[in-house]
Amino acid sequence: MRIPHFAACLAAFAVMGSHSARRAEAPAATLEQWGTFEITLKGPATGNPFVDVRLSAVFDDGRTQLEVPGFYDGDGVYRIRFMPDTQGRWRYETRASRWELTGKTGEFTATAPAKANHGPVRVAHTYHFAYADGTPFRQIGTTIYNWLDTPDNVQEETLRTLAGAPFNKARMLLTQQPTSYRQSFAPPRWPFAGTPPRDWDLTRFNPEYFRHYETRVAQLRDLGIEADLILFNPYGKWGFETMDAAGDERYVRYVVARFAAFRNVWWSLANEYDFLRTKTEADWDRLGALVQQADPFNHLRSIHNGTLLYDHGKPWVTHVSMQNGIAVESPGSAQLYRDAYRKPVVYDEVKYEGDAKFRWADLTGFDMVHRFWSGAAGGTYVGHGDYFNTLGEDTWTSFGGRLLGTSAPRLAFLREILEDGPPEGLDPIDKWNDPDTAGKAGEYYLTYFGRAMPTTWAFQLYKRDVTDGMRFKVDVIDVWEMTITPVPGEFVAKKKDNYHFVDTQGRSVPLPGRPGIAVRVRLIAPAQANTGPARAAGER
Amino acid sequence: MRIPHFAACLAAFAVMGSHSARRAEAPAATLEQWGTFEITLKGPATGNPFVDVRLSAVFDDGRTQLEVPGFYDGDGVYRIRFMPDTQGRWRYETRASRWELTGKTGEFTATAPAKANHGPVRVAHTYHFAYADGTPFRQIGTTIYNWLDTPDNVQEETLRTLAGAPFNKARMLLTQQPTSYRQSFAPPRWPFAGTPPRDWDLTRFNPEYFRHYETRVAQLRDLGIEADLILFNPYGKWGFETMDAAGDERYVRYVVARFAAFRNVWWSLANEYDFLRTKTEADWDRLGALVQQADPFNHLRSIHNGTLLYDHGKPWVTHVSMQNGIAVESPGSAQLYRDAYRKPVVYDEVKYEGDAKFRWADLTGFDMVHRFWSGAAGGTYVGHGDYFNTLGEDTWTSFGGRLLGTSAPRLAFLREILEDGPPEGLDPIDKWNDPDTAGKAGEYYLTYFGRAMPTTWAFQLYKRDVTDGMRFKVDVIDVWEMTITPVPGEFVAKKKDNYHFVDTQGRSVPLPGRPGIAVRVRLIAPAQANTGPARAAGER
Repeated sequence: MRIPHFAACLAAFAVMGSHSARRAEAPAATLEQWGTFEITLKGPATGNPFVDVRLSAVFDDGRTQLEVPGFYDGDGVYRIRFMPDTQGRWRYETRASRWELTGKTGEFTATAPAKANHGPVRVAHTYHFAYADGTPFRQIGTTIYNWLDTPDNVQEETLRTLAGAPFNKARMLLTQQPTSYRQSFAPPRWPFAGTPPRDWDLTRFNPEYFRHYETRVAQLRDLGIEADLILFNPYGKWGFETMDAAGDERYVRYVVARFAAFRNVWWSLANEYDFLRTKTEADWDRLGALVQQADPFNHLRSIHNGTLLYDHGKPWVTHVSMQNGIAVESPGSAQLYRDAYRKPVVYDEVKYEGDAKFRWADLTGFDMVHRFWSGAAGGTYVGHGDYFNTLGEDTWTSFGGRLLGTSAPRLAFLREILEDGPPEGLDPIDKWNDPDTAGKAGEYYLTYFGRAMPTTWAFQLYKRDVTDGMRFKVDVIDVWEMTITPVPGEFVAKKKDNYHFVDTQGRSVPLPGRPGIAVRVRLIAPAQANTGPARAAGER
Repeated sequence: MRIPHFAACLAAFAVMGSHSARRAEAPAATLEQWGTFEITLKGPATGNPFVDVRLSAVFDDGRTQLEVPGFYDGDGVYRIRFMPDTQGRWRYETRASRWELTGKTGEFTATAPAKANHGPVRVAHTYHFAYADGTPFRQIGTTIYNWLDTPDNVQEETLRTLAGAPFNKARMLLTQQPTSYRQSFAPPRWPFAGTPPRDWDLTRFNPEYFRHYETRVAQLRDLGIEADLILFNPYGKWGFETMDAAGDERYVRYVVARFAAFRNVWWSLANEYDFLRTKTEADWDRLGALVQQADPFNHLRSIHNGTLLYDHGKPWVTHVSMQNGIAVESPGSAQLYRDAYRKPVVYDEVKYEGDAKFRWADLTGFDMVHRFWSGAAGGTYVGHGDYFNTLGEDTWTSFGGRLLGTSAPRLAFLREILEDGPPEGLDPIDKWNDPDTAGKAGEYYLTYFGRAMPTTWAFQLYKRDVTDGMRFKVDVIDVWEMTITPVPGEFVAKKKDNYHFVDTQGRSVPLPGRPGIAVRVRLIAPAQANTGPARAAGER
């Protein structure tokens, strides 16, 4: 037995900024927090290294030890990627089932992150999200399932579109559907060796496919967009969907090892999981737990349904990823699933804006905007789709390219409003009695009237955290016209009855009598000391 | 050690018909299926038999062996109660931690049930209920929390009211709240020895309290009413709520041993469980599983919430028992929790019909009827409350007595309609696109328009299980006026597009333009053979 030469064939690359993993070319002694550090090793290229070789590294900052799995990247090259979640010095040492890969050591220093780097997104305040540095993340999602199965110029166009769009999360399939861009275009890369369905070798991955995918994920990261990677889908019949349990596990571990050190990755175990007739619910339970166990960085995890909901109460699920075409028709129904799961609820598919003859893709722009607002005022989040297929183009939601709908600018407007709201996020204030209102009691209220067309709103706040004399400003918001109209003057809270406070002058707010109107109420100042006994705690 | 005399002190009583357990006076060799068979034994009366003695019997019909726990009934009397779920000969033998109670044997024959005896209610067709003999059970619940803490004449009045009311399930507390009937009336019995809070002995039950309760449960049974027994509640501060885990377990086992052989019992682990600040969620998980394990007859089990929903996905929960004041405002929102839990959903508390200044008890009669219909057309079930406290009477929902609201006759009307519907129950037909319709595809459709006031409805059915030429009858239902108005003539299905069938003549149904209108569509006959190629399978 030969003692391996330390440092032989070892190069540690830091992958930062807009550079993809494969393009990093110089070892780095420093790396920003939540950047991607990469160890590259040379090892055996014979046999089937994807199956035969196990590899990891233990990273240690003196407080935490984290074992991080590596992967084979072809041509005798092995990589281990790490995302430091604390600043300071990190040392590592590799472990492997081959002597030439084990026992390699090194170190680097994680420095303060760049301004635009807030770390990975985590669950915050039970029902919401925030980046690891505490910055709130108000999910405005979109869907571009197969955007990496298009010519490069379309992929570049997609990135340009995203750069000018409001979306901060995009859902995308990690393996292709059997649809093709412009009918005649064959995807240039496949995730496994060979081409489906005949000569695919599902025991060998195609590193070039994944390297390309990683480049795009890094570009999304640099645009501030989370990549919601969909591991399985029900859309093909080419062998991938019938892999055995060992094959599924190998695939999951490979994908997680490659992508987990990108801070903008979310795991979506499947799209329309229940439509994949070659897997049982027990398979999903097992694979979901496997993703959780295999990912040292604990990225967000969920699973998206067709018509049968997964039990999002299961421990591996961090947030609800739901297809539901009706719950977001009103804030009062959108909120209901929050209570069932006590996790953030993202309605990742609410039908698409489009002109399709399919009724899952025929929302008007207003319908889409309305569903986003209903979700927001129900304390939940929504995903967008754009599916116009009578204009001679392939649809955004399938292949990226251009947005043809009218909702996106209005979603940008919504995003601004949400990001200007309370850092904790919006929660129903009085969930069973005022289902159209969310906010933060005593500070911020957003009431969305949806398709109703009221001409007035009597200023009224639920009693929680409100006291006599509190002063509020009110704005009237038109969600389609994107206007915020301040109501002149202030509203001063005065206890009305056992439940509510109204304005001391009894003021109401005139409304335009159109659909898509919201009212925003914000605290200017707490009650003045001179408002007297009405401020006593007993008055609440 | 003395070998016990077999059959000494042994009497086996069958408790049938309207007789309560304690009144049975003769051994019976036969008993109807799902009746209550009782073994009575004499044993030790010293020490604390509630704590000291363990007792059960194993029942055997040659196919199944079932161990059934017994209980101490005071004065040296021990009982074991059994509900045979099959017909034929059953033998039994007792087991006990005392020689004088163990090894007693006997037998009886379970005969065909009487006409009104359909057995216990079980979950059927995932989202619905049926009696054990297959008869559908369409839950129309009510709430009479403390009706056994009233003078006997009020209890008798309650039974008379129930006999003329539509309710087939009643929720009731197994231990008192600290409210009293007419302020001055002290409950005549307490579940534990002594009186609360000072001289209660929580290690000793009061058999007389439970015997009285059982008499009432048997009377409900004979009225065709399921008794939803609430084991814990958050309404007292007298020691019961702070029992330790051993005390809770003793209480649960005692209650289950006493009541489980009554076929009309449901277990509600708690009312507003999350308002009981002396228990954790882990306690509820443990106690729910204990009820499941302790009940040999597998009665329905759930837990009712305040504002925090329990995870009804947990295996011990058979159906969802929910307080929610907003989900039943429309069928489309009522249905949402079905998907989350894949179990029957009962909205056991949707606010009460009443005139209270509390907003949880100020529904109009129409509001209550509307919520029942929304629940029904969402494929779920609803519970009623009646809380008028400005009329100088104690409220029905607290103490029983008289109903003062106006919803009950309309709920009887709804119950008739549901019982006249498909035996499987009503399920959403096209859940995300036609949220106001439930039924059975191709056979039966109930569309409830709620508070909307349409003046016409274009006959249209979702394609599932519909073929060209199928003939339907349509009725217009006024849920408040309790009228069913048949629409003249027939409607004949004709494929319209990729999703829907309409009438061949393009007919619409005129509607009265009032709130509370429903349309019922029922299949008269499948397509005629001569309707030609439109019937081909490919047309679906």
